[in-house]
Amino acid sequence: MQFTKMHGLGNDFVIVVREEVPPYVEKLAKEICHRRFGIGADGLVFILPSERADFRMRIFNSDGSESEQCGNALRCVAKYYAEELSTIRKSELTVETGIGVQNVWLEMEQDQVKQIRVDMGEPILEAEKVPVLSKEKQVIHQPIRAGEQAFYFTAVSMGNPHAVIEVEDVQKIPLDVLGPMIETHEWFPRKTNVEFITVHSPDEITMRVWERGAGETMACGSGACAVVVAGVLNGKCDRKATVHLAGGDLEIEWNSGDQHVYMTGPAEKVFTGVWLKKY
Amino acid sequence: MQFTKMHGLGNDFVIVVREEVPPYVEKLAKEICHRRFGIGADGLVFILPSERADFRMRIFNSDGSESEQCGNALRCVAKYYAEELSTIRKSELTVETGIGVQNVWLEMEQDQVKQIRVDMGEPILEAEKVPVLSKEKQVIHQPIRAGEQAFYFTAVSMGNPHAVIEVEDVQKIPLDVLGPMIETHEWFPRKTNVEFITVHSPDEITMRVWERGAGETMACGSGACAVVVAGVLNGKCDRKATVHLAGGDLEIEWNSGDQHVYMTGPAEKVFTGVWLKKY
Repeated sequence: MQFTKMHGLGNDFVIVVREEVPPYVEKLAKEICHRRFGIGADGLVFILPSERADFRMRIFNSDGSESEQCGNALRCVAKYYAEELSTIRKSELTVETGIGVQNVWLEMEQDQVKQIRVDMGEPILEAEKVPVLSKEKQVIHQPIRAGEQAFYFTAVSMGNPHAVIEVEDVQKIPLDVLGPMIETHEWFPRKTNVEFITVHSPDEITMRVWERGAGETMACGSGACAVVVAGVLNGKCDRKATVHLAGGDLEIEWNSGDQHVYMTGPAEKVFTGVWLKKY
Repeated sequence: MQFTKMHGLGNDFVIVVREEVPPYVEKLAKEICHRRFGIGADGLVFILPSERADFRMRIFNSDGSESEQCGNALRCVAKYYAEELSTIRKSELTVETGIGVQNVWLEMEQDQVKQIRVDMGEPILEAEKVPVLSKEKQVIHQPIRAGEQAFYFTAVSMGNPHAVIEVEDVQKIPLDVLGPMIETHEWFPRKTNVEFITVHSPDEITMRVWERGAGETMACGSGACAVVVAGVLNGKCDRKATVHLAGGDLEIEWNSGDQHVYMTGPAEKVFTGVWLKKY
């Protein structure tokens, strides 16, 4: 089986082009994603035909489960499609994902896709929909305790829940201690992703993320979006800002017109290959 | 650059066939071995021409440094050479490594190499050569403290130092706590690899290994050899035994004739590929 290995800011995927997802996909995803016995990746992503969009994307995690959406994976498949599969040059693509048809814009340089802009949809701020337990309708700059320490957090859902916390220096935060405490705090009925941020200026933020169920990661696209939304709500950020993540930078815009959040960032092809196991 | 990804019991390598090692190999090894931005491996291994043997092997670790030898890598390149490069079928190969020319034997099944037998050389038992500080000439079943607990260890060098400790159930050992304590114990001037073992019968042992500078790993070929040597010295093992490691099984024989230790185990090709970065 032929594949291409790609990553978006270190969030890495095995990309496979097929007519359909094979019936043994759960086993295949587990085997392929294993970092010593397989190819090694966060997910196995299929590019499939679509009747509603340029193509369809389906993502299977390293535990075999399916994800509805992932901004980093979407940038990767958009670049792959434009460079390898599309017969005509288009600067805008539509991609069918588990949450509907998503729009993607490409910044080209010669024949290569340099940056990919993804519509990440409208943030959800109502507490009960994030979900976060609160007497307030929205949770903005609310105190929360983690062990001996107290922080202020803002709750934002980008389809998945985020707790954004501003601190003086994100690099000094013991994320492996505080992350799981907040992730599993009783106020978050479906747990939460946790973003610690340092705001350098209204258009520049550094973020470290503790992903729900995954721990500290190099990049979380929906987290970067939530961070800028929280920054705006707290009067600390412009609606357009650069977010520095461990894996690289994302440009985030919370559009004042349609209220959607747009994420712009790179994707890289690392190697192509042939998976030798036969099923 | 074309490559093949292989592993020996989960110890994984990117195999490249070249006329010579490129001058930028340190950078290349670091980039290729990175598990998110690169191909992901414990080492980058070159198969090169040799005037003294069937071929020459050179191993570069994920930090860019060179290793003189590695039993798991040697099994991988022997299988690769026999299946992909050799024009004649031979059941015995010679491989030039950093410690000299090593002999390797292949067990074939049709055209595939199923098991590879490697001469791991003669164990070194003299305390000062292991090295381990001791009043005794050899260190066999000597008491050692690690935190609150006391164990008995046997010191064996297979070119690198090993402390072998028998316990009732290796799975119950907190290796991440005890491993670093013994690795850096003052009696080991060059630190030590640490193997906890459970002897099920004279020819069957389960082992967990804490590798010097690397932590717990799935497989350590020289460690499995040291374990059987220690077992024989303690009167617990036959000279030929199966060692169960986290990544799979190795057959170890401490030959009573030449006193060399022979290791037999598998190697697997996982995928072939093309690394896309140009230098």
